[in-house]
Amino acid sequence: MTVESTFARWRDRIESQLDASLPAPDLAPQRLHQAMRYSVLGGGKRMRPLLVYASGQIFGADEAALDAPAMAVELIHAYSLVHDDLPAMDDDAMRRGRPTTHIAFDEATAILAGDALQTRAFGLLADAPLPALLRVHCLQALSHASGAAGMCGGQALDIDATGHAQPLADLQRMHALKTGALIRAAVRMGALCGEAPQADLLQLDAFADALGLAFQVRDDILDVEASSEQLGKTAGKDQAQAKSTFPALLGMGGAKAELAALSQRMRESLAVYDERADALRALGRLAVERNH
Amino acid sequence: MTVESTFARWRDRIESQLDASLPAPDLAPQRLHQAMRYSVLGGGKRMRPLLVYASGQIFGADEAALDAPAMAVELIHAYSLVHDDLPAMDDDAMRRGRPTTHIAFDEATAILAGDALQTRAFGLLADAPLPALLRVHCLQALSHASGAAGMCGGQALDIDATGHAQPLADLQRMHALKTGALIRAAVRMGALCGEAPQADLLQLDAFADALGLAFQVRDDILDVEASSEQLGKTAGKDQAQAKSTFPALLGMGGAKAELAALSQRMRESLAVYDERADALRALGRLAVERNH
Repeated sequence: MTVESTFARWRDRIESQLDASLPAPDLAPQRLHQAMRYSVLGGGKRMRPLLVYASGQIFGADEAALDAPAMAVELIHAYSLVHDDLPAMDDDAMRRGRPTTHIAFDEATAILAGDALQTRAFGLLADAPLPALLRVHCLQALSHASGAAGMCGGQALDIDATGHAQPLADLQRMHALKTGALIRAAVRMGALCGEAPQADLLQLDAFADALGLAFQVRDDILDVEASSEQLGKTAGKDQAQAKSTFPALLGMGGAKAELAALSQRMRESLAVYDERADALRALGRLAVERNH
Repeated sequence: MTVESTFARWRDRIESQLDASLPAPDLAPQRLHQAMRYSVLGGGKRMRPLLVYASGQIFGADEAALDAPAMAVELIHAYSLVHDDLPAMDDDAMRRGRPTTHIAFDEATAILAGDALQTRAFGLLADAPLPALLRVHCLQALSHASGAAGMCGGQALDIDATGHAQPLADLQRMHALKTGALIRAAVRMGALCGEAPQADLLQLDAFADALGLAFQVRDDILDVEASSEQLGKTAGKDQAQAKSTFPALLGMGGAKAELAALSQRMRESLAVYDERADALRALGRLAVERNH
């Protein structure tokens, strides 16, 4: 089985798991339920769930044990996009080639749907068919990654920085929180479900940190080089908003060199593992090579 | 020790616990941290934490074991107020006699602060000094109470109903989700921490359901009879927004009779307990008799 067919199978798996775990669209309050489903089931690369499955695979975790963490991290990601797109935040009308949730529904519903998706993420982990202590460890990883010391904090730093240039260290710290923390939690939860020893958790943290940063460097490069149609969202927005980016700070050549260095760090941090880490290796390459 | 001095002690306890559990205001991202603290530490009756302590006391739970659930339920309540006050939702400028969070800060910060407060609630429970299975049970109770099948769902039903009259059954269901579910979770988490048997959990659910509804009936009565100064928020808003209320549906006399009936149900559901339930009884009376 090729790694691509494994990814396709995992994507199908997470899609049907998410579909079954979100409230039914025809039950009251319908509008809220429909907005939650619209925000989650509307496509997306499912990179974070794939990271959970791929990381768990290294340690022989049962796929059924990985479903709840995979869904939870995707729901946190999805809620953050819904709130990020709001007029008071990034004010984005398009996402994944479709109207954003507050455009397709309304602002109040988008705020509530985001809130309820976050709650569902933690509820799914609390209800997961896993030993209680493992559920607690996943809940700790995910809550630490997504709150003020993680994703929300990174978004706040991003807002604070809008309109003025940031030094490279600040930009890296912002991205480490805004996108890196959740990617790290995804990889870590997969490993936790495979009962990975502490040393492996740290080894995988190093991989995840490089991956998170690589993902963002690639995002910045694409924002300059790709079209809106390719991206499914507005291109060239970073420059229009005077945001600091890796190409702006390092030049396009420098940004591409940074991406190559991160790619190398990812390979090194997985060097100790056998072919069971091939899916995780492939996800590292995807982050670096993707065109949208 | 009178019940009033017990409440004062618990209020001091929860205040210092919350203060210590929220991120420091002088650490980056400062604005987010300050908005989180402003939203939580700005007063409030702390009814939900008091319910946790009072419920736990019936079963001899250690107060230190009750701190995390008490904080968690208050953080969920606080985040819901921050998001509820937003322009796209209730558009309220005043809360607890002070500017609401999006007025004191800005909308983007208020959205993020609410998000991060919700995350912190679940993170605190995941990190609580309690056995893993008890943490999981509290996480289940709180997540079920606050998501689409609880508080968020109730807010969505409230929005759906704005501008047109609701029948009494719909109004009760809306409030049972919007405020009742979280009150039930508070009472239940306290009892869980005291290792209460299943029969007691159900007994206390009945108390909590009556309390939640009584709280809302009293709220509706106060909205008509009290001044904005007394309430610390805009009075008469229900009528201005053409919202269904208990006085509107039942008349003021009918609403007060309903309140008396709920008061009776609360007394009955605690009749089997000794004086260790006196604090919970007093909270039931407070909900019915409060003037703000």
